[in-house]
Amino acid sequence: MHRNPANTDHRARIRLFVEYDLEHHHAVPATPNQHSYLRKVMRRRDGEMVALFNGRHGEWLARIAYEGKSRCMMIVEQHLRPQRVPPDVWLLFAPVKATPMNNIARMSTELGVGRICPVLTEHTDVTRTNTARLRSNAVEAAEQSTRLNVPIVDEPAPVAEMLEDWDPARRIILCAEAGQAVAIPDALSELEPGVAWAVMTGPEGGFSHSELDGLAKLPFVTPVRLGPRILRADTAVAAVLVCWQNHLGDWSD
Amino acid sequence: MHRNPANTDHRARIRLFVEYDLEHHHAVPATPNQHSYLRKVMRRRDGEMVALFNGRHGEWLARIAYEGKSRCMMIVEQHLRPQRVPPDVWLLFAPVKATPMNNIARMSTELGVGRICPVLTEHTDVTRTNTARLRSNAVEAAEQSTRLNVPIVDEPAPVAEMLEDWDPARRIILCAEAGQAVAIPDALSELEPGVAWAVMTGPEGGFSHSELDGLAKLPFVTPVRLGPRILRADTAVAAVLVCWQNHLGDWSD
Repeated sequence: MHRNPANTDHRARIRLFVEYDLEHHHAVPATPNQHSYLRKVMRRRDGEMVALFNGRHGEWLARIAYEGKSRCMMIVEQHLRPQRVPPDVWLLFAPVKATPMNNIARMSTELGVGRICPVLTEHTDVTRTNTARLRSNAVEAAEQSTRLNVPIVDEPAPVAEMLEDWDPARRIILCAEAGQAVAIPDALSELEPGVAWAVMTGPEGGFSHSELDGLAKLPFVTPVRLGPRILRADTAVAAVLVCWQNHLGDWSD
Repeated sequence: MHRNPANTDHRARIRLFVEYDLEHHHAVPATPNQHSYLRKVMRRRDGEMVALFNGRHGEWLARIAYEGKSRCMMIVEQHLRPQRVPPDVWLLFAPVKATPMNNIARMSTELGVGRICPVLTEHTDVTRTNTARLRSNAVEAAEQSTRLNVPIVDEPAPVAEMLEDWDPARRIILCAEAGQAVAIPDALSELEPGVAWAVMTGPEGGFSHSELDGLAKLPFVTPVRLGPRILRADTAVAAVLVCWQNHLGDWSD
């Protein structure tokens, strides 16, 4: 994205996610990380522009105002894009090792999920997740993918606990390797566009048989198969989200 | 995949790619890496079984026969699956840094590509690729994904050079962020299943305008858009291959 930081003509616009309200003339303080990124990594000078979004007020252009060496304000100047409501799809996934899990947070953010929910299944080996790390991966991916919001990242929860409070109006597309699952293109073409969705992928080694049976019996769950080859956890997440965006999300014209 | 190597009941079958012919009673020598993987990583004992494939003779069960501490033969015993011809799709992609490039080799193998071709474009920063590393990623992904063959991995070539010898019967689906590209679900639904395909993704920063214009003018190229958010290089590769497998490949029943 940022091939040539020294060349002001061709360099890409920096986008930063902030927690603050965004309005004309507001002064938003950069976090220490943002300050260091702007000054040292991207070599932005005083008075140069940066884009800001907060998930509520769309995207804005702001002017960089360094205050000494350790502080930086971003003065909000121009409204670029209104906030829009993205397609409503959550990701439920069994935690895996750090590298594929960070891929999952990043790729699912690029692919438009609204919520990232680590779910502990019977065969889940990795029961602790670095939630702060997942969140920072999601923020970075949102900044780079031109999203206007950042997905919520939940703490891990056992699958039974998660299903206790489940709103049955939110349909789940369950990636099941075994059992009576239908091929995903066929399954999706029979689903009617709904308001709220989730996709769910299992751990390395798959769901247990009893778990899969229990999930598949729920009226809001559609089990699907992702092709004839076994996919690693992160590839499976990308695959089901791409299919969802194609059939039910915002990838069509 | 291999959660509990010590438990012989539930452990997954090991699959190894070999170069040798596979026939009843053939003795196939394990490479030093394969030997070390069988004995030390997976703790397979003398007389236990391993699955072998070579891309030509289907999948076979073979019996492990250690010869001292440093050698191991695999005695071919039982034919498991005949060789099948997978859908014919190649991947053309601009090389990126090592981590996303290894993701690309792995995920595209899981997603069924027959050939992995690094292509140098105008904005390609990374011009050297570790072809041996890409190949070993592809072999490992083929072993774990239950494929019966391993994709060919080419040395990188400039895009113009690659197009000089291009067989126009092999259609290219070009992932273009800019220009007149059609949304991929709409583009694919209008393409007729053909015999031979390739998908092509650009570098971080995208294709140059002139490059994109030149490619889009070729009669065998269909430019597509992958949704409204910017995808990183590895996510884009996974996305276009998932779309292809859904519409034209082997993911439907």
